[in-house]
Amino acid sequence: MPPKRQHMTAEEFRENGYAVVDWIASYLEEVEKYPVLPSVEPGDIASLMPDRAPDVPEAFADLLADLDRVVMPGITHWQSPNWFAYFPANTSAPSILAEVVAASLGVQGMLWSTSPAATEIEQRVLDWLVDMLDLPQAWKSDGPGGGVIQMSASDATHAVIVVARHSRREHARSEDMVVYVSNQAHSSIEKGCTIAGIGHCRKIDTDAAYAMDVACLQASVAADVAAGLTPIAVVSAVGTTATTAVDPIRAIDRIAKQYEMWHHVDAAYAGTAMVCPEFRHLQDGVETVDSYTFNPHKWMMVNFDCNVLWVTDRAPLIDTMSILPPYLRNEVSDSGAVVDYRDWHVPLGRRFRALKLWWVIRSYGVEGIREFIRSHVRLAEDFAAWIDADKRFELFAPHPFSLVCFSLLEGNNATKRLATALNASGKVAVTPSVIDGRSFIRISIGQTHTGEVHIVRLKALIDELA
Amino acid sequence: MPPKRQHMTAEEFRENGYAVVDWIASYLEEVEKYPVLPSVEPGDIASLMPDRAPDVPEAFADLLADLDRVVMPGITHWQSPNWFAYFPANTSAPSILAEVVAASLGVQGMLWSTSPAATEIEQRVLDWLVDMLDLPQAWKSDGPGGGVIQMSASDATHAVIVVARHSRREHARSEDMVVYVSNQAHSSIEKGCTIAGIGHCRKIDTDAAYAMDVACLQASVAADVAAGLTPIAVVSAVGTTATTAVDPIRAIDRIAKQYEMWHHVDAAYAGTAMVCPEFRHLQDGVETVDSYTFNPHKWMMVNFDCNVLWVTDRAPLIDTMSILPPYLRNEVSDSGAVVDYRDWHVPLGRRFRALKLWWVIRSYGVEGIREFIRSHVRLAEDFAAWIDADKRFELFAPHPFSLVCFSLLEGNNATKRLATALNASGKVAVTPSVIDGRSFIRISIGQTHTGEVHIVRLKALIDELA
Repeated sequence: MPPKRQHMTAEEFRENGYAVVDWIASYLEEVEKYPVLPSVEPGDIASLMPDRAPDVPEAFADLLADLDRVVMPGITHWQSPNWFAYFPANTSAPSILAEVVAASLGVQGMLWSTSPAATEIEQRVLDWLVDMLDLPQAWKSDGPGGGVIQMSASDATHAVIVVARHSRREHARSEDMVVYVSNQAHSSIEKGCTIAGIGHCRKIDTDAAYAMDVACLQASVAADVAAGLTPIAVVSAVGTTATTAVDPIRAIDRIAKQYEMWHHVDAAYAGTAMVCPEFRHLQDGVETVDSYTFNPHKWMMVNFDCNVLWVTDRAPLIDTMSILPPYLRNEVSDSGAVVDYRDWHVPLGRRFRALKLWWVIRSYGVEGIREFIRSHVRLAEDFAAWIDADKRFELFAPHPFSLVCFSLLEGNNATKRLATALNASGKVAVTPSVIDGRSFIRISIGQTHTGEVHIVRLKALIDELA
Repeated sequence: MPPKRQHMTAEEFRENGYAVVDWIASYLEEVEKYPVLPSVEPGDIASLMPDRAPDVPEAFADLLADLDRVVMPGITHWQSPNWFAYFPANTSAPSILAEVVAASLGVQGMLWSTSPAATEIEQRVLDWLVDMLDLPQAWKSDGPGGGVIQMSASDATHAVIVVARHSRREHARSEDMVVYVSNQAHSSIEKGCTIAGIGHCRKIDTDAAYAMDVACLQASVAADVAAGLTPIAVVSAVGTTATTAVDPIRAIDRIAKQYEMWHHVDAAYAGTAMVCPEFRHLQDGVETVDSYTFNPHKWMMVNFDCNVLWVTDRAPLIDTMSILPPYLRNEVSDSGAVVDYRDWHVPLGRRFRALKLWWVIRSYGVEGIREFIRSHVRLAEDFAAWIDADKRFELFAPHPFSLVCFSLLEGNNATKRLATALNASGKVAVTPSVIDGRSFIRISIGQTHTGEVHIVRLKALIDELA
């Protein structure tokens, strides 16, 4: 006879909730005690779990205990201040607490009417961000454009590729369409093209700073047009994944306009830096583009997932994504007085993700976020100067934001060995990469709690292991 | 001079976390005190917020206070036990608490190596679900297939349409491909076809019970083939959105095999019911299909988002979705010993959503979830019997699960008036819909805390307003 215990009472929820809050507070205090990268082998974590689901309820205390027994040995500590790998995927206290409120309200914001607060807070906070990042006023919710939270930059980029394809469907077959990116662009764009069925994704050569070579773009587009293909979109990167290179938006846009291509900007990581005026020259020309995406879930302390996509004109997006079955019809939507975000992306359902974005911005304030970004950039400049001054190393690429790429003058093998040794130390996590056969190490400085002391230790560790 | 306050201390996090837990506990206790549907006008919520982000930090207490001042007036209470609209989008105490842990760990499970626990717990829990729902053993992680958590059934369905298209790209252009669904299928399938660039989405006629008419499917496919088009996929619904109709999977599969079509099953809502053996005859033939999706975030008390997609053969999915840039390469992935879920869907990044699924299944046990489902189905049977016995009403469709559709014999206008009156009462939320010009009201019984008392009150309210 199974126990009849079903839902937690309010009292049990309070008690268990406090226990979870305590566990999290301890984790965040003690995260540096764990090796940043776990040392488990494939199958180790699964082997700690039974083969079959339990027939009868288990006590909440057992679930909590299994966080330490089963989960922690297999956690890669993205929230460690010694996290220098990939780009950050930050969280922060207000973001965590907003996420639990959103999970509790459990609203499904597919339509304005299925939770007006979810839609209107999203619109208002994305309007705030337009001003915070000095983006075009036309992208605000009272203009012809608008913003929407999506899951990831991959989803946002895929969405705009689909819109570009859909807008040109009378003129060409998908298989004959072309999208242009630099050879340093994020893999999500090529993947988005594959998924959208676009025939060609051209990777344009880059200059010495790994930024798109506009003359090569012009030549490539002209050759494709001459060959009977149809250019539909070009993607400019502000901060590539490998080295945070910055494509020249304004020059690229002239070619985009000449060939009637959709111009999308991928500022997934670096977009957050635009809260500081001193970085905005790196997105010069942004007022000319058709869409722009950045991830508050990278460098703005909002936990994954929270991507923002803005479009200059929302009509083609909605025209592509809108499907209206009878069970979703309602008076207020029919009136056109509201936005129904279901028509702004692939999925129908959507979480109340604006809440955490709202709470983070209010908790830190615009000045606080600026200070946060500048502190990381200062640390990156300091680290880069140290690399530059040491005869064993060389800087691999410019560092306009807070990613520093370097290699060992001794060569690729030495660089790879150093990356392996750093990661094996348990004390930090870094990402090894390679461009044109040359190996380098990415030091991405941006975790919520990374400060001067962590860079001091990082330098000492590199000095020791190099 | 802005305040220098930045991150919460551990002590502040504890204090604010307890306050949030208290707020949630009160909300969940008092949810029935709110009108189920809010009575705000477009713009009301946004007008409560300033035009610009604050420059300086705000106190956490102010954020919490704004939950009551700004957020609550615009919340549609999906977590009310008087929620009978759409399908449920449930949450539960263990799901809420798991979500906050996932937000705190902040791991990004794109690769096995970027958090082995996230990948292996997901694989193991989806293997549990294969047994719980009596699905084919080949779908387990040690077979040729496998399961993956996606954001929504829309995303899962779009993904398999893309895979079907990609697999046939040498044989036909997207514009000449055809996908088949019943005319009762969810709008996400037509939307998925549009987004994937599929030329034709055929809506096949249904029988008196709103299930796909297999003879019509056969005729439609044959006509398309004769016209030179290429059938690529058919989607069977187990529980349509309008009336929870059930398509005959086994008969449809014979046509799918005959024409080499991908056969996908959409059991978004009803999949959870398969935890009870007495419903499994409704998915007879499931061992023959190519993919299957259901939403634990509907009826299994796991908060949105948590969709599961299984495929019988994971090779074509990974072949379609895989892109491998150098910064994502690593030894363990290259060895083939692990699954990298980035290759199973459109986005690259992914939250640790398996945690909440794991906690919910363990907290209730398989028997507890069965009891939960059966309680809602019993309430639906009771409600349907009451409708059937009352001369003012008629049942609109069969009710194999926990959705009851009914209309007023007086006609469409009376039915619509009743739906409007029910929703305007503030006491319940229901969804009006229409098929073939006939209006009906959907009563979806499935919210986490819906019990007998709520159905008694619902009947009284209908009796009063009809």
